[in-house]
Amino acid sequence: MPGSSFGTIFKVSTFGESHGKAIGCIVDGCPAGLDFDLDFIQQELDRRRPGQSAIVTQRKESDTVQVLSGVFEGKTTGTPIAMIIPNEDQRSKDYEHLAEAFRPSHADYTWHVKYGGHRDHRGGGRSSARETAARVAAGALAKLFLRTQGIFVHAYVSQVGALQLTQAYTELDLALTESNEVRCPDPEMAERMIELIRAVRKDGDTIGGIVTGLAFGCPAGLGEPVFDKLHADLGKAMLSINAAKGFEYGSGFAGVSLRGSEHNEAPPAPELAAQAGSKPNTGGGILGGISDGRDIHFRVAFKPVATIMREQDTYNAEGEPTTVKGKGRHDPCVLPRAVPIVEAMTALVLADHLLRQRSAQ
Amino acid sequence: MPGSSFGTIFKVSTFGESHGKAIGCIVDGCPAGLDFDLDFIQQELDRRRPGQSAIVTQRKESDTVQVLSGVFEGKTTGTPIAMIIPNEDQRSKDYEHLAEAFRPSHADYTWHVKYGGHRDHRGGGRSSARETAARVAAGALAKLFLRTQGIFVHAYVSQVGALQLTQAYTELDLALTESNEVRCPDPEMAERMIELIRAVRKDGDTIGGIVTGLAFGCPAGLGEPVFDKLHADLGKAMLSINAAKGFEYGSGFAGVSLRGSEHNEAPPAPELAAQAGSKPNTGGGILGGISDGRDIHFRVAFKPVATIMREQDTYNAEGEPTTVKGKGRHDPCVLPRAVPIVEAMTALVLADHLLRQRSAQ
Amino acid sequence: MPGSSFGTIFKVSTFGESHGKAIGCIVDGCPAGLDFDLDFIQQELDRRRPGQSAIVTQRKESDTVQVLSGVFEGKTTGTPIAMIIPNEDQRSKDYEHLAEAFRPSHADYTWHVKYGGHRDHRGGGRSSARETAARVAAGALAKLFLRTQGIFVHAYVSQVGALQLTQAYTELDLALTESNEVRCPDPEMAERMIELIRAVRKDGDTIGGIVTGLAFGCPAGLGEPVFDKLHADLGKAMLSINAAKGFEYGSGFAGVSLRGSEHNEAPPAPELAAQAGSKPNTGGGILGGISDGRDIHFRVAFKPVATIMREQDTYNAEGEPTTVKGKGRHDPCVLPRAVPIVEAMTALVLADHLLRQRSAQ
Amino acid sequence: MPGSSFGTIFKVSTFGESHGKAIGCIVDGCPAGLDFDLDFIQQELDRRRPGQSAIVTQRKESDTVQVLSGVFEGKTTGTPIAMIIPNEDQRSKDYEHLAEAFRPSHADYTWHVKYGGHRDHRGGGRSSARETAARVAAGALAKLFLRTQGIFVHAYVSQVGALQLTQAYTELDLALTESNEVRCPDPEMAERMIELIRAVRKDGDTIGGIVTGLAFGCPAGLGEPVFDKLHADLGKAMLSINAAKGFEYGSGFAGVSLRGSEHNEAPPAPELAAQAGSKPNTGGGILGGISDGRDIHFRVAFKPVATIMREQDTYNAEGEPTTVKGKGRHDPCVLPRAVPIVEAMTALVLADHLLRQRSAQ
Repeated sequence: MPGSSFGTIFKVSTFGESHGKAIGCIVDGCPAGLDFDLDFIQQELDRRRPGQSAIVTQRKESDTVQVLSGVFEGKTTGTPIAMIIPNEDQRSKDYEHLAEAFRPSHADYTWHVKYGGHRDHRGGGRSSARETAARVAAGALAKLFLRTQGIFVHAYVSQVGALQLTQAYTELDLALTESNEVRCPDPEMAERMIELIRAVRKDGDTIGGIVTGLAFGCPAGLGEPVFDKLHADLGKAMLSINAAKGFEYGSGFAGVSLRGSEHNEAPPAPELAAQAGSKPNTGGGILGGISDGRDIHFRVAFKPVATIMREQDTYNAEGEPTTVKGKGRHDPCVLPRAVPIVEAMTALVLADHLLRQRSAQ
Repeated sequence: MPGSSFGTIFKVSTFGESHGKAIGCIVDGCPAGLDFDLDFIQQELDRRRPGQSAIVTQRKESDTVQVLSGVFEGKTTGTPIAMIIPNEDQRSKDYEHLAEAFRPSHADYTWHVKYGGHRDHRGGGRSSARETAARVAAGALAKLFLRTQGIFVHAYVSQVGALQLTQAYTELDLALTESNEVRCPDPEMAERMIELIRAVRKDGDTIGGIVTGLAFGCPAGLGEPVFDKLHADLGKAMLSINAAKGFEYGSGFAGVSLRGSEHNEAPPAPELAAQAGSKPNTGGGILGGISDGRDIHFRVAFKPVATIMREQDTYNAEGEPTTVKGKGRHDPCVLPRAVPIVEAMTALVLADHLLRQRSAQ
Repeated sequence: MPGSSFGTIFKVSTFGESHGKAIGCIVDGCPAGLDFDLDFIQQELDRRRPGQSAIVTQRKESDTVQVLSGVFEGKTTGTPIAMIIPNEDQRSKDYEHLAEAFRPSHADYTWHVKYGGHRDHRGGGRSSARETAARVAAGALAKLFLRTQGIFVHAYVSQVGALQLTQAYTELDLALTESNEVRCPDPEMAERMIELIRAVRKDGDTIGGIVTGLAFGCPAGLGEPVFDKLHADLGKAMLSINAAKGFEYGSGFAGVSLRGSEHNEAPPAPELAAQAGSKPNTGGGILGGISDGRDIHFRVAFKPVATIMREQDTYNAEGEPTTVKGKGRHDPCVLPRAVPIVEAMTALVLADHLLRQRSAQ
Repeated sequence: MPGSSFGTIFKVSTFGESHGKAIGCIVDGCPAGLDFDLDFIQQELDRRRPGQSAIVTQRKESDTVQVLSGVFEGKTTGTPIAMIIPNEDQRSKDYEHLAEAFRPSHADYTWHVKYGGHRDHRGGGRSSARETAARVAAGALAKLFLRTQGIFVHAYVSQVGALQLTQAYTELDLALTESNEVRCPDPEMAERMIELIRAVRKDGDTIGGIVTGLAFGCPAGLGEPVFDKLHADLGKAMLSINAAKGFEYGSGFAGVSLRGSEHNEAPPAPELAAQAGSKPNTGGGILGGISDGRDIHFRVAFKPVATIMREQDTYNAEGEPTTVKGKGRHDPCVLPRAVPIVEAMTALVLADHLLRQRSAQ
């Protein structure tokens, strides 16, 4: 049972390696008649693109998307939509030293074992975060569908290293998220985060952080008991992103110390559900695994990038000790580029559950 | 697309409401020829059973499992194994006042909207945590299978309210987990946790906490790129448990503040993979979504139980303000009973991925 | 990847062996709010029941269905509906001689190999057609749902041995199908078929035949390109019934000799689609894998029952030649009892595709 | 729930329209380490290619396959293998007259209804048999995998119109199948079939026929009770091919007239299973839905191509009567080109079930 597909009705399948000919996706299950805005999809890819600013990897990839099927006269036809993104700036020799050595805290070793010793090590092969570009293309399509239903997703960087936004999302001007390189809606904090990332890079090192994810306008009723709870599918979606280490929604880990009487909130009165979105909520917009009409909010933890520009001890395929040092052009911090990926995966989960809900009654 | 099934090859489907005739499950895909130890399955159910100690709900359910199919002469036959657990101690009138009022932070309201106003409100219906008994039965079967492969799962309570174990799992005597009512392997901390739960209950209130989950003996190679990463499926499994609010593995949320040079660890040398299990690891036994042969470790956050014995403001199905106060017999803290559920879901994920790995090469 | 589930949104999973405690099913995905008519479900089971007439097996099973979940106050709740049918009249010793010998043209040998030598041989275990009772229960539920959408399914016996109805379904009075033991709507032909079956049984032998399946009132638009064409899913459903050997729809095998100019039919004008149902059609109500609003019609071939009351040469598990002779009470011809099973599987396919179509636009 | 994927472990997803930029597929689940023979895949596509002989459509498409991912240093890596086939010879204006008129016995009308009136009508869009090129590419990969397991698939044309081969496959020299344009292994019959097809085309008409499918070397044990029986999945696979109207295996429809005593065959003795392949068998190599080690044999009925070069009455999207006459370059008979498609789908089914069987014990 392979694992490169996500979703049940609005379903995406991705393919491609970092240094292969192309990466891409098929979206099967997008309803017919949707306006297909290719410019928007390309814009979303540009938000994830390498080389977009000074604090991300300087790989030069235009990440230009090509649509092969499923669209006719500017609208979706209900058939599979295939999108491909050719790989351009491959410096495979930057990775030659990795054919044998397993990078610490990287997928090299586990892929080696899983597939019997045969793997495409160039640029990390399929374990590279480059695969997420295909997700962003698919997610952009999901966003276009969600818009027609009045649903909008948004994400921003809320922590880099120990630098942590203290405001709730309701206290921030989310229009500012895209105003700076790190995608933090608090400009002052953004400046400090950028400085930290620069300092870390100068050290040849990397740093982790947290992305906050949001969805506005989601109607009550999405999520399927008992295994496919909305937050369970969101959690899986987020944890499937490269470098993700944790997921929490609503009150999350901090909420465990509260008492029920402190934590509990009345559900929105049915007629108030739509407006309830702007209120803070411990449920995170989800009760019993089903959306309640409030804003959905959650947080995703990302570890520091494993590839660093320092010499590290490790092993090779023969089990012998060796050392390895990052070459090539890598992100000192995945957070700024993780924002559009978190949004894409959120959109894919919500689009799928919106369609699933059509059969509930 | 309904949501009451979990897994792809080792697949469990559950059914049943809190106050219906029975709950139960079908496990389809358990390999043939496995010794079927019914006593062990019952023991696992007893660990989750209501009324097992003074700090859990006093509902009286024997939770006796009956096997309807899939077993012949003490061994599995490769066909679906159906197990049912009749419901016994139903005091549906404790819930009559809830037919109309939506309990705060509970699934009442969202189920009402999702299913067009028709739901079995008695005992929470299918949104009740009683459904997890079926998971524990299925998970016990998965444990039996995993044992034959040398894999063992374990979970314990590592936090209740603000009371938090500071030791890593490697510093604890896990044999003590089952020695106390709260299932914390540090007897002194266990005592304090039990006192806290008693005090909270006396107040008519509830409290949350954290369960730590572990798997020992898991070979390298489990987990499917790119969406069905092992930790993504574990995360979904844990988040699908009632009251779960967060999941993290390895270094988790705390790891985001580390630098790559601090966080990175060499992979186990191939020949050392088996022994690597006892070392602490930031990866949590999973690199790039694939197990690396080390111990798997993760943490699950549970919120305070929503049903409290105090009067709370809420709304009814007509959108009118009303109040509600818990009746019946509820848990002041889900943590002690969550332990076997976390183990069951862990076992189901690992059994499924073990079988999936058989097709990788 | 186990195989005891069918459908994607309206999904049925069955379990159970012929001589186990019970057989049954879970239907997950039935919309909430549907009137649950238990009497109707029992009536459908009675149509499949052993011992219902002189020309079927004389096994005595009341096949009384019990509902364990998913129904509240007479309506479905949207949650899984579990139904079980306890096994009653098990004469396992009739099968003792089969523990070792493989019956000719039976599943004994292949199950033995598939599951490594461990199988429940009693009454054929799970390979017994008894499993189809669970399908009939699930299919009855699907029929209840289809009725609310104006769709009705019907099947009848159109051939037994060489005795073949020459009329098209449009020339028959389908109300007569249930008026005789063999379920053939032509009373004269029915009489001849019954005589043939009696003669065959007297010889200790068995005979095959054909069931014609129909669906009326199905809207245009059901079926999913390109693999899940409506007739492809119907074909799989029919071929999954015990003893099925072939499936054809519309003009079927006979149509291959026609020229396009003879075979082609104009599609119904959109406004005429509903009335088109009563016209004969080569498409069988399906064009390009999608229903066109006309009647759906197809035919299913069933082989003679493998178990005969004569001594036959065969092999045992050690590969040694031996002989075997049927004991117990078996059907001389599966056709009369296959009719409700064909209807049930048809209803399951249509219910599923109706729900799938809700996401097409 | 979209329908453009097939299989569970060895899984293919196709995309593309007849006159879009490209068609293609992703194969996810192909085991790692398989020798990837691109030349073989291209050869298989050449067998399906338009313009290959005088009796098929004269569309000029080189159908050159490009591999985008999943292969490294000549071997599969276990990751998704994406293959695309650019569309070249599109004469979309041949189809302009069809934007409004629905061709008789064609998918035009049903797609129009299914997708709310928005469809790519050019060249039949996605309902075109051009989509099957993607299946042939995926199937060729499955063949490569099956070869390593000692399994070979083969198909040939056994009937065109009323011209019917009377020999069983065991009496034919299958090496001759590819020796003539119509792919019938009896050269004399082949000549007559070719003449018939020519005559039909001269009339501006089309004709149907039957393909016989075979698999040699398949081990006993493939097929999953109870819904995913091997022949049920084969049947679905065949019925999903454009223009297919029926499927039968082993004794098929003819077998219904036999008595059990005539029809029954002893299973192969275990040690003889491998050699059993060359014997004729009523079971078609499948008993109880599971392969028995004998040859697998089945037949697929194809209707005459719907597009004919004659004027036909029909309706347009407004429900008004109109006429339509085929333009462009169409096949007078799909049979010769259906042979590699039947083989491809057979290979996909067997590859999937081979991998599924790895979890049975």
